Amino acid sequence: MIKTDILIIGAGPTGLFTVFEAGLLKLKCHLIDALPQPGGQCSEIYPKKPIYDIPGFPEILAGDLVKNLLEQIKSFEPTYTLGERAETIEKLEDESFIVTTNKGTKHHAPVVVIAGGLGSFEPRKPQLENIDKYEDNGVSYIIKDPEVYRDKKVLIAGGGDSALDWSIYLADVASEVYLVHRRNEFRGALDSVEKVAELSKKGKVELITEAEVTQLHGEDTLEAVTVKHLKNGESHVEVDNFIPLFGLSPKLGPIANWGLEIEKNAIKVNNAYDYSTNIPGVYAIGDVNTYPGKLKLILSGFHEAAVMCQSAYQRIFPDKKYVMKYTTVGGVQGFDGTKKEAKKEVIKSIN
Amino acid sequence: MIKTDILIIGAGPTGLFTVFEAGLLKLKCHLIDALPQPGGQCSEIYPKKPIYDIPGFPEILAGDLVKNLLEQIKSFEPTYTLGERAETIEKLEDESFIVTTNKGTKHHAPVVVIAGGLGSFEPRKPQLENIDKYEDNGVSYIIKDPEVYRDKKVLIAGGGDSALDWSIYLADVASEVYLVHRRNEFRGALDSVEKVAELSKKGKVELITEAEVTQLHGEDTLEAVTVKHLKNGESHVEVDNFIPLFGLSPKLGPIANWGLEIEKNAIKVNNAYDYSTNIPGVYAIGDVNTYPGKLKLILSGFHEAAVMCQSAYQRIFPDKKYVMKYTTVGGVQGFDGTKKEAKKEVIKSIN
Repeated sequence: MIKTDILIIGAGPTGLFTVFEAGLLKLKCHLIDALPQPGGQCSEIYPKKPIYDIPGFPEILAGDLVKNLLEQIKSFEPTYTLGERAETIEKLEDESFIVTTNKGTKHHAPVVVIAGGLGSFEPRKPQLENIDKYEDNGVSYIIKDPEVYRDKKVLIAGGGDSALDWSIYLADVASEVYLVHRRNEFRGALDSVEKVAELSKKGKVELITEAEVTQLHGEDTLEAVTVKHLKNGESHVEVDNFIPLFGLSPKLGPIANWGLEIEKNAIKVNNAYDYSTNIPGVYAIGDVNTYPGKLKLILSGFHEAAVMCQSAYQRIFPDKKYVMKYTTVGGVQGFDGTKKEAKKEVIKSIN
Repeated sequence: MIKTDILIIGAGPTGLFTVFEAGLLKLKCHLIDALPQPGGQCSEIYPKKPIYDIPGFPEILAGDLVKNLLEQIKSFEPTYTLGERAETIEKLEDESFIVTTNKGTKHHAPVVVIAGGLGSFEPRKPQLENIDKYEDNGVSYIIKDPEVYRDKKVLIAGGGDSALDWSIYLADVASEVYLVHRRNEFRGALDSVEKVAELSKKGKVELITEAEVTQLHGEDTLEAVTVKHLKNGESHVEVDNFIPLFGLSPKLGPIANWGLEIEKNAIKVNNAYDYSTNIPGVYAIGDVNTYPGKLKLILSGFHEAAVMCQSAYQRIFPDKKYVMKYTTVGGVQGFDGTKKEAKKEVIKSIN
């Protein structure tokens, strides 16, 4: 059982900055995220994309923002449960919570903060009969370890960067690579498109455009697929692996069943005070929440985190009266023994 | 008459970032500030002080934060009325406003945003009979142009950085420099204290400690002061100038008389929606406002600015339905013809 003061679900920018604001109040944080690393979408989907609306940064790459936030919170020693999805929540008699992940990891905390962004990102699956049967038996939606495909016959479907990049990569790993796409146009980095065209000419990638996979075949594991050519006919292609890479789609996921008030796929919170949900002790901040006038901006998540931490402090220590201290005055005292502070003015006598 | 879409009173970090959020909505901003440069306290009082709680900056000097914000808003071409204080507000029949400064400059806008921080900073004046009479006739509270004191007899009062630094500076400019302080201890940078001690030994600064100025003398302009030694006696010192440097004290100032709901020296706003005040069309954001759970943090000012701009847009264009666009998707289109945007994905055919 992992114990902490504030359990944060979602390790995107808002979740990460919560660790800082909680740390100033001497509260410890643990973060759960379905992705294998912190940073949320910024790390997983667009680390190299510039962001222009973070105050004080005329331009910053999403990945660098995450790097900076990790540096900013380092001294507050956050801990993580990564690659697992928060699945269930249970309220104990003392009003604290147990949150359990899909892998059974249990977390115990008096305060739970959902900073889940647009939810966990799940792969968009093609609508094919019996596709479930082949999942992990030849069909996968994410490439975790490309070595799995060494010397295999692999068919990738999709027309974006992931489909292009993995076709290029696997051309040197798999025995055969097919790339199937509904159109002739690919939407990806120019050099990736050109690289695939080149590999196709060399016969290292078999390009099948204006086509789609319509059937899957095989006893227990996948053995072949039917590819329908949109202009005429079908072909039967023997493959070991079918990898549809149609992008990720955000889902609120199991949190939708926690008894929280939901509106437009987001969690309703009390923005007039502390961003608490209808369950006392559970807060929702950042893109995952909704309230009148809500803007889905990273900078709003930062503000919501700061406000929420004050309320969490009062919940955890109902008898203490907390007076906010400014970091410009008191500095930042890490849990790791570090201390950052502005040079103090000197008092010196002259005689 | 200066005309603009959003008139911002206060050019601190919150006021500056408002220009960015307004700019994304194609709204122009003009800023009024009593200080001679933008940046508010960050520029005027502690430009070299590190701040630790700006999200994404493990540490940033206040002056650098202002520099970054000015760079971030540059393409939206904000205009300024600096060194003047917003004095009166008048609502016209069309629900727009005229704001006039203490120097008579008039500004016309449909939306007024007070981002006034802790208010305008006014010098703390010593309580001396007839001091008003000598203001600008020998007594000043701020040193604007040190050349005014060339070859004059100058008496500075105070024990902080300003008093120390100006004593050091004027030692080479004025014919005589007196530094009067109530205590023996000075509160300032170590090397300033030591420099003053050295100048005192050399006879370039006459140090009078455990003493204070109690009377001012002179026909029309200042001619002499009485210095009371706290332990024994008084002395009569002939001076041309008396400069009490006792720090700056924040004052809400004339805005307090605008008919806004005030609570604890701050302006009450509707935090449950758009940070509007009780006067429709007038908003208050940043440290100048108050609401349940208010935190006086720069990052909260940024959020309030973003939310407020959406409401301002609706007020200015009641018939247009604005759909928020993300800078990561649409880029930032400056009023100066510049455009910043992420590299677009490429669509390319393969045949």
